[in-house]
Amino acid sequence: MAKKIPKNTIKRLSIYLRCLNKLDEDGLKTISSNELGDILGLNPAQIRKDLSYFGEFGRQGLGYKISKLKDSIKNIIGLDEIQNIILIGAGNLGRALLNYNVLYKRGFSIVAAFDKDPEVIGKIYNNVGVFDIKQIQDFIREKDIKCAILTLPSEQVQSVAESLVKSGIKGFLNFAPVILNLPGEIKIVDVDLSSYLEVLMYYLQNNSK
Amino acid sequence: MAKKIPKNTIKRLSIYLRCLNKLDEDGLKTISSNELGDILGLNPAQIRKDLSYFGEFGRQGLGYKISKLKDSIKNIIGLDEIQNIILIGAGNLGRALLNYNVLYKRGFSIVAAFDKDPEVIGKIYNNVGVFDIKQIQDFIREKDIKCAILTLPSEQVQSVAESLVKSGIKGFLNFAPVILNLPGEIKIVDVDLSSYLEVLMYYLQNNSK
Repeated sequence: MAKKIPKNTIKRLSIYLRCLNKLDEDGLKTISSNELGDILGLNPAQIRKDLSYFGEFGRQGLGYKISKLKDSIKNIIGLDEIQNIILIGAGNLGRALLNYNVLYKRGFSIVAAFDKDPEVIGKIYNNVGVFDIKQIQDFIREKDIKCAILTLPSEQVQSVAESLVKSGIKGFLNFAPVILNLPGEIKIVDVDLSSYLEVLMYYLQNNSK
Repeated sequence: MAKKIPKNTIKRLSIYLRCLNKLDEDGLKTISSNELGDILGLNPAQIRKDLSYFGEFGRQGLGYKISKLKDSIKNIIGLDEIQNIILIGAGNLGRALLNYNVLYKRGFSIVAAFDKDPEVIGKIYNNVGVFDIKQIQDFIREKDIKCAILTLPSEQVQSVAESLVKSGIKGFLNFAPVILNLPGEIKIVDVDLSSYLEVLMYYLQNNSK
């Protein structure tokens, strides 16, 4: 894809997809950008602009075909088939994610978890086994895994991420509050839970929405 | 505050604050919007515009005073003093948040957790006690708590949130994948963990950053 897509457009794709999934489940067939804007509290022009980066979807006056647009966005994100991912660090947060069935519904399958703690190795959470982290390189290569969730303590995350890059991992979802230093071609998405509280606090203080 | 502040400006305030905290710790005194833009990968004009909603901070050619700007943003967000919050649902995710010390560093103190499970009531995680959810109304009133984190199973979250609103809670950070239906004046921030994976997946598929 040659065009530079704004970061917020990518984030909104995920919001559109969730909404379209819901509308499709509800049996709706078509929706206009105005209606979609009303549901999501977004500017319809913004929605049309976001989608225009990826091709021609709607037709003037007819709106978008919900199931077609949904499939197209899935395809754009790369979710037209289930994505296998691994999780490293089976502590409380890791286990919470293993139990978070929404991920599967949204097209992700955590196929294995890894830890170095003998207490959790061999345990099974929500049908996902926890393996010894020593086995991780072989697992990544055999199963051709590209994406890993890091729910490790901060002090371990950089060295573990480096070794996973050597094994072939191309993207990380990082929950540790550290900035990972990895080769430029590796994609990193950091989850910062405090920032949500800060946004909430702002709205509480300023009484606006 | 009369002006309508864009949602993404509020989100970026949190990003600015984190960066300014780090720069202040490193002993830096001033920074220009260009330098801040370089560090954060943001357009300096965007930074100047964001900050202009809240007053005059920098001076042409002199940049921003780091400690002053940091304190101003803390004040805007309402983090000039530690914010006491409660957490409801001491399962894996709840416990992960209780152990997440970054929250305290960023100005939030989880002062108590609540659950209905006798197995966890009375336990202490990272110095925070888990109380019987039956005690929650008294606690909220006595301690004048305004903000709650919901780490409950989806099917419980609506009814619990309703009862907390009656006890005086004004804002929720909701981790359950449900849309809460609450009075309009109540602020809700939803955390959608799948959306991060979708963003990561997009970047992996399309090899852009």
